[in-house]
Amino acid sequence: MPSQQQAIRLSLPSKGRLESGALDFLSAAGLRIFKPNPRQYTASIPALPGLGVLFQRPGDIVVSVRQGSVDFGITGIDVIEEKRGGNGDVLVLHDALGFGSCTLTLAVPEAWSSVKDLASLKGFSASLNRPLRVATKFPILTERFLNLHQIPHALIAAEGTLETAPTIGYADIISDLVSSGQTLQDNRLRPLPDGVIQPSQAALIANRNTLMSRPEVLEMARRLLEYVEAHLRAEANLLVIANMRGESPEAIAQKMFTQTIVSGLQGPTISPVIVRDATSHWFSVTIVVHRDQLPQAIAELRSIGGSGIIVSPVTYIFEEEPPRCKAMLEALKQETAPC
Amino acid sequence: MPSQQQAIRLSLPSKGRLESGALDFLSAAGLRIFKPNPRQYTASIPALPGLGVLFQRPGDIVVSVRQGSVDFGITGIDVIEEKRGGNGDVLVLHDALGFGSCTLTLAVPEAWSSVKDLASLKGFSASLNRPLRVATKFPILTERFLNLHQIPHALIAAEGTLETAPTIGYADIISDLVSSGQTLQDNRLRPLPDGVIQPSQAALIANRNTLMSRPEVLEMARRLLEYVEAHLRAEANLLVIANMRGESPEAIAQKMFTQTIVSGLQGPTISPVIVRDATSHWFSVTIVVHRDQLPQAIAELRSIGGSGIIVSPVTYIFEEEPPRCKAMLEALKQETAPC
Amino acid sequence: MPSQQQAIRLSLPSKGRLESGALDFLSAAGLRIFKPNPRQYTASIPALPGLGVLFQRPGDIVVSVRQGSVDFGITGIDVIEEKRGGNGDVLVLHDALGFGSCTLTLAVPEAWSSVKDLASLKGFSASLNRPLRVATKFPILTERFLNLHQIPHALIAAEGTLETAPTIGYADIISDLVSSGQTLQDNRLRPLPDGVIQPSQAALIANRNTLMSRPEVLEMARRLLEYVEAHLRAEANLLVIANMRGESPEAIAQKMFTQTIVSGLQGPTISPVIVRDATSHWFSVTIVVHRDQLPQAIAELRSIGGSGIIVSPVTYIFEEEPPRCKAMLEALKQETAPC
Amino acid sequence: MPSQQQAIRLSLPSKGRLESGALDFLSAAGLRIFKPNPRQYTASIPALPGLGVLFQRPGDIVVSVRQGSVDFGITGIDVIEEKRGGNGDVLVLHDALGFGSCTLTLAVPEAWSSVKDLASLKGFSASLNRPLRVATKFPILTERFLNLHQIPHALIAAEGTLETAPTIGYADIISDLVSSGQTLQDNRLRPLPDGVIQPSQAALIANRNTLMSRPEVLEMARRLLEYVEAHLRAEANLLVIANMRGESPEAIAQKMFTQTIVSGLQGPTISPVIVRDATSHWFSVTIVVHRDQLPQAIAELRSIGGSGIIVSPVTYIFEEEPPRCKAMLEALKQETAPC
Amino acid sequence: MPSQQQAIRLSLPSKGRLESGALDFLSAAGLRIFKPNPRQYTASIPALPGLGVLFQRPGDIVVSVRQGSVDFGITGIDVIEEKRGGNGDVLVLHDALGFGSCTLTLAVPEAWSSVKDLASLKGFSASLNRPLRVATKFPILTERFLNLHQIPHALIAAEGTLETAPTIGYADIISDLVSSGQTLQDNRLRPLPDGVIQPSQAALIANRNTLMSRPEVLEMARRLLEYVEAHLRAEANLLVIANMRGESPEAIAQKMFTQTIVSGLQGPTISPVIVRDATSHWFSVTIVVHRDQLPQAIAELRSIGGSGIIVSPVTYIFEEEPPRCKAMLEALKQETAPC
Amino acid sequence: MPSQQQAIRLSLPSKGRLESGALDFLSAAGLRIFKPNPRQYTASIPALPGLGVLFQRPGDIVVSVRQGSVDFGITGIDVIEEKRGGNGDVLVLHDALGFGSCTLTLAVPEAWSSVKDLASLKGFSASLNRPLRVATKFPILTERFLNLHQIPHALIAAEGTLETAPTIGYADIISDLVSSGQTLQDNRLRPLPDGVIQPSQAALIANRNTLMSRPEVLEMARRLLEYVEAHLRAEANLLVIANMRGESPEAIAQKMFTQTIVSGLQGPTISPVIVRDATSHWFSVTIVVHRDQLPQAIAELRSIGGSGIIVSPVTYIFEEEPPRCKAMLEALKQETAPC
Repeated sequence: MPSQQQAIRLSLPSKGRLESGALDFLSAAGLRIFKPNPRQYTASIPALPGLGVLFQRPGDIVVSVRQGSVDFGITGIDVIEEKRGGNGDVLVLHDALGFGSCTLTLAVPEAWSSVKDLASLKGFSASLNRPLRVATKFPILTERFLNLHQIPHALIAAEGTLETAPTIGYADIISDLVSSGQTLQDNRLRPLPDGVIQPSQAALIANRNTLMSRPEVLEMARRLLEYVEAHLRAEANLLVIANMRGESPEAIAQKMFTQTIVSGLQGPTISPVIVRDATSHWFSVTIVVHRDQLPQAIAELRSIGGSGIIVSPVTYIFEEEPPRCKAMLEALKQETAPC
Repeated sequence: MPSQQQAIRLSLPSKGRLESGALDFLSAAGLRIFKPNPRQYTASIPALPGLGVLFQRPGDIVVSVRQGSVDFGITGIDVIEEKRGGNGDVLVLHDALGFGSCTLTLAVPEAWSSVKDLASLKGFSASLNRPLRVATKFPILTERFLNLHQIPHALIAAEGTLETAPTIGYADIISDLVSSGQTLQDNRLRPLPDGVIQPSQAALIANRNTLMSRPEVLEMARRLLEYVEAHLRAEANLLVIANMRGESPEAIAQKMFTQTIVSGLQGPTISPVIVRDATSHWFSVTIVVHRDQLPQAIAELRSIGGSGIIVSPVTYIFEEEPPRCKAMLEALKQETAPC
Repeated sequence: MPSQQQAIRLSLPSKGRLESGALDFLSAAGLRIFKPNPRQYTASIPALPGLGVLFQRPGDIVVSVRQGSVDFGITGIDVIEEKRGGNGDVLVLHDALGFGSCTLTLAVPEAWSSVKDLASLKGFSASLNRPLRVATKFPILTERFLNLHQIPHALIAAEGTLETAPTIGYADIISDLVSSGQTLQDNRLRPLPDGVIQPSQAALIANRNTLMSRPEVLEMARRLLEYVEAHLRAEANLLVIANMRGESPEAIAQKMFTQTIVSGLQGPTISPVIVRDATSHWFSVTIVVHRDQLPQAIAELRSIGGSGIIVSPVTYIFEEEPPRCKAMLEALKQETAPC
Repeated sequence: MPSQQQAIRLSLPSKGRLESGALDFLSAAGLRIFKPNPRQYTASIPALPGLGVLFQRPGDIVVSVRQGSVDFGITGIDVIEEKRGGNGDVLVLHDALGFGSCTLTLAVPEAWSSVKDLASLKGFSASLNRPLRVATKFPILTERFLNLHQIPHALIAAEGTLETAPTIGYADIISDLVSSGQTLQDNRLRPLPDGVIQPSQAALIANRNTLMSRPEVLEMARRLLEYVEAHLRAEANLLVIANMRGESPEAIAQKMFTQTIVSGLQGPTISPVIVRDATSHWFSVTIVVHRDQLPQAIAELRSIGGSGIIVSPVTYIFEEEPPRCKAMLEALKQETAPC
Repeated sequence: MPSQQQAIRLSLPSKGRLESGALDFLSAAGLRIFKPNPRQYTASIPALPGLGVLFQRPGDIVVSVRQGSVDFGITGIDVIEEKRGGNGDVLVLHDALGFGSCTLTLAVPEAWSSVKDLASLKGFSASLNRPLRVATKFPILTERFLNLHQIPHALIAAEGTLETAPTIGYADIISDLVSSGQTLQDNRLRPLPDGVIQPSQAALIANRNTLMSRPEVLEMARRLLEYVEAHLRAEANLLVIANMRGESPEAIAQKMFTQTIVSGLQGPTISPVIVRDATSHWFSVTIVVHRDQLPQAIAELRSIGGSGIIVSPVTYIFEEEPPRCKAMLEALKQETAPC
Repeated sequence: MPSQQQAIRLSLPSKGRLESGALDFLSAAGLRIFKPNPRQYTASIPALPGLGVLFQRPGDIVVSVRQGSVDFGITGIDVIEEKRGGNGDVLVLHDALGFGSCTLTLAVPEAWSSVKDLASLKGFSASLNRPLRVATKFPILTERFLNLHQIPHALIAAEGTLETAPTIGYADIISDLVSSGQTLQDNRLRPLPDGVIQPSQAALIANRNTLMSRPEVLEMARRLLEYVEAHLRAEANLLVIANMRGESPEAIAQKMFTQTIVSGLQGPTISPVIVRDATSHWFSVTIVVHRDQLPQAIAELRSIGGSGIIVSPVTYIFEEEPPRCKAMLEALKQETAPC
């Protein structure tokens, strides 16, 4: 189907935490996936006409983007680093989508009380008279890490749950993805504090060649990045409106400039409030506040006479110069194209 | 229970895509369904006191509204057209609720390579020496369509999956609801391009006699339509706020009037922004933008100096003269009542 | 684990309607629960660093808060009253979180046609020649209620479904939680109108001693109450914006003051709207409207020339003096601390 | 696919109690269904090579057998009687497969205290001033029954749950399938004792024309009936073996002939038991006992000195002249063919 | 419903491992439960007409049998001992139904390395300066056990999972049901080797008074015990048939008497086997072998020339004098009645 | 845990069709798995004390057996051949357990109408100007097969569903496991008739070194093979008993020897049947019949006067010289040990 080859395609994880994370993320960013039939392996995003959506396993997404059979992918940094290869065809457009967090880590049996870190692991394995057997699904990253730290080892590939490998005798230690650590703890394993091989979360990748050769793909990359960044920024902020008594907008603004959070970067929007039987002037001030700083902002507004404080949600915040978009153009050496 | 007969009642689909669609739609429209016990067949809508909610199969809803045992129903246009009868008792108040989309369509086996459209189907069936056997759950609409196109046929009723009928030998072709087309494709069937019998999506219906004889039901119809229309309009729009430098609100507005999208129908709301150590005036402009035009609106705002662009969600947009409400009153010939 | 004892801990219901209710409530209040692994019995709330979350059965939560092994709990008023004991260690911070509503009620077999209320129940039980057998999971509240009304009885504890007890012969009547009444009806039981032992919904409780001895726990209580109250207030209101023609903001405000709902408590925020080719002045008015009064507010705005009415959601509304926080400080006799 | 038309085909119910009943029944009869992929709509029975299996809704099975698109079907007598038509094409080979029992019955609201039977229903409906509205999914059987009893009525077709129809006002009474009666009771309906329209259970049907024209289909019918009858007979019986002391096989048999159950139709199989240090002769007797009579058979055996009684399961019991097979041949007027 | 009071009633567990265990056990014993509707709380056993079946929580079953509202119950020994009270109304008919095995056991945190048994627990708790807090759902058995071993304690009732109680700080140790020990291990708890309070498995109980006053209930008890015992015996045995060459049945038997397992209690059943072109005599020997001894029995049979060894299942083995039935009659002091 | 290393261990598939197949197979063979807690990764087989059971992914089982961390495994021949390596450590004890059947096969897009077999595939791929891209999870077997047939190719590893790979453009063709072919058909792929790389079903494997060095493991292998073979033989046969009139056992046997199926290998067991008022002698004959030949056996018995034919199930059939056990000993070159 040659026409299908020409469509622009985004591949999403087909399973597990990354799948639900990606669907929720895109939906929250205004890019809801429409998949009319559960048996279909393709879907669309009504807000992005021209973009087809596929579902693949996380690792297959990296392979597909690398060989160019799909143009964009959302998947974990762990498999991106494991499978991206060395030719630079996989370009990371956004490396912090804020979901799917985990860490590829070395873990040893709790019972190995003498092994506290990589140094003591190295000592312990020297006493084994054979290479340390390390079960993993990430042979390339694990090999590179163990070689870097000069720990003699034999890698053992596994299909299923790695955590039981040391108890079964399938391997001595494991190199596995850890999120809460509960599964390790249930299996009496302990992560090594300096055994972090690769921190990971969901990222957006693209095929570099396609971005350079097909302008409509580059345009879609810009659009995707714009939505993603404006959404992530909006998620972290809230619109705060307070009523305040004062002589003039300027007087009110001066009071706000005395504060830490609500002084803002650029200054509040100020509109008159008309009160019945007014003996003094009232104004409504509107500012954007970071979600983490909300309690302090409320306290500050109250301290300068703010009342009736209303907080509203924000869907997007668009910046003037989206940094990820600029980074993409630099990576493609196409600085002339505007973001 | 006579008192129950006097309550106003709305019937919702009890199963499948239409059920979840209706619950999601009403909830998003601020009319969340409250059903404290899953075994109950009735529920209520806290925001619409006085309205009882029932759950029935899509087709039973049409029959109930037609015979007046319930007052309002939300169900598919497909079953409305199949079961509304000819006496005009079923009045369609809103025919595009935006969910449950599908199409009642004729589909033939992929292997019938010579059958490309209704004309060639007619030719093919003439060569059969017997009427074309057509399996369907919509005998009235299918009969009418086949007669209109003068295709000799025998209808075969079916309870279960129609798509396997041609392979089993239960029928030659089918007249079935199609949404994504995936199920047809899985069963090696092909829809005829001019075989569309009835396009469908969810609609709101009411019993015409009840609307005319019971003023409180007519009032409820107005309320329902008002919420539904204000919600559908809100879903399609976003509130966009940008900061802009300028001499005066009027100067800013003039810049916006040069643009296509952000020039708006009526003009922006403009409020002063007080900046620290200001050497020039800043204003905040607020406009409503259609969701589909957001990227272009952002580009236009940037091109005339807009920055710090914030996008907020909208819950309802109320128009001055709700057209569906007026259409209802006209259908009831009660033009004196205001909407 | 001494460090864990020092953390501040909130216990949530681990099962059923109260569990999903609590998770939805906290999430809607901006306090989303993060539980990376379903096998973990602990979780966290990213928006409230320093607070650990546990999951326990509703009744165990009251015991844990009473004995101080956890600091805060969200659970039903029914089990709070049953298990709080008499020493005042369990302090109710908020008694109306708006979910998990039900009522602890006496219910008798439908077939007991002569028993209409407590008085006739008393008469009927006198005719039994033995104490009335009452099955319940709330022995303390039920005992107190039956004694108060001087109904001789024998309580029968039960583990499972109480509703079948009268039919099995396990008991004569039951004292059970009722929400929709459907389960009673399915089992041919009838609640007594004056048999309400305890109305219930979800509440927030804390250990009084911990609040008094650990300032960081008192501070967390303030933070929790602030979020909860601002969220509950926001849920009940909407932000309404309308455009209106008028000579001046003051003139517009005067028109609004003639109305019932939109006259507001404090007065509208009014900003100019700049229209193309304007022959008259337009303004945008913004007010906060209670969700229940929205239809009337829309009607009033239209009646004074309001058009293009936009309704937006609100996330929080912060009052100047949160009443529940003040009540907590009074209960702790720590009036000097500000809320 | 002409070759598929020539295969012999059996259609099984695709849903609900009849589906699981049919799969369990055939498996227990040694005719396990093999369906390698859940998405396939066809399957096979390894013990009956040459027979293809389809899955259809119960009513569609009758239509398929009637029009000859499948050769055999297992479905409920209720839908067989409703949909078999009058031309005799549907031949019932076995009408008591022992699963899927239910009854098509008239049920009235519990509150209609004066309506006790058909006679009082007739009286009541006469007082209505309009025909009795009867909701049903079996219009043909219900029509015939109501006409037979001269009850004026209007039938109302329904897609979903009928039991709520009287409460909703959708109909006055219902004609519905009843198994335990619990669903009627939950909905406060009462079956009329003489309102039984059609008792039902699963039956095996075939297309009469195919049986007559295709010898291999007739042979398959014989095979199916042989397995089904031998299995049903085996299910009802057990093999009982007891040790007994006696002079000779004949003496032992005489003792057994004095009893009621264990005297058997034909007499016991008797084999010697060789005991160590024997002072008397021992024998083992083997008889077939009906499952319902097992306790009495054990008592009888004990009363004549039986000990060490062992009971074994039976898979099939083949009779000399299978009655259903003979009945089939008679119906086809092919008495010369042996069974 | 007086008639219902007169029916004989058996109560089964309504939940969890005991429920599925009881259903499987009764079905395997030929007493399949028939429950036509999942919403019904009653069922029947077609093989035992006259016996009604109820479903209750394990503990409620004991209360029901004790107060006589049901006649028989199958539930765990753990709750029987906890709730049977002291008046002897609950009679245990069979105490080893072979499913639902678990043990009520004291378990302490793994971290308490000095606590190895009850003695060291006593020492440890003395060092606490307060009573040991013990969380349990079995207060009576636990209280009795701790008093017996003179361990000062405070019991803490819990509704939900006990295993997390020590980590939460809800209690110091727990007294809980343990089957595999996995849940304890997952929660870092360790059972005390001499901390076994009550071993448990499913048992059959009856109300003593009903057995004595209602002969039909006593007869049903006999029938139940007969089926249960014959089934349990059959489950443990297999029927083994071997062909063997020999001069006579007696010669063959003598060879078998030289062996350990196949020499049997009573001697083999021996029948002639007629072989084509026979130069020597062949016989078939049939014996009953305990399932655990099957491999050795096969080896013994082979060693004396056995070939073509066939093993068949057994459904029941009835003994001459069922011991549990006799024990029941003795407990009721009704020795004259035969078993 | 040194003691655990010394236990004998069997690893079973932890997922999918192979898991349920293995559990059902072992249970039917009298080797039911006991796993008291679903979270445990180990289990036991009560009938085989001393054998521990693990659950692993199919491929990990082969690796575990090869490296000796477990002693026995049941898994698919497909992964055994892919992962057994070349050193002969994996010994296949039984290669036809009768479940988990599938075939590793090459499949091409349906649309490649010119590609009918390997020869035309080779031709087609020559026209591609690049190696044929073949997606597979079995690189070793696929590589070997493609090299053998001299088809130039590039293998592409995949984690997820292979069947969509050609449509996505991820690969040109696939080498995948096929059972019913439905999934291929759904994805418009076609298996090549001579593209079968490896037929597969479940097999029992062992570590060769452990068998040779640990006699208790060899003994367990004998026990496992004995059970497995006796069960598989029993599954295919039934015990048939018929009554027959005749002068003597010999006369009856002669009649049977005239038939094809019931003449048997060794001759029938014949016992007298004592009939009431007998005018002739009756005998019971017992034979073993292959399940597939049952209908013919019944016909033959009837033709020589057999009546009252009873068929019983068989649990095991033990042969004198189990061939798989002998094959194992030969493979281990330990012919002196008896089987």
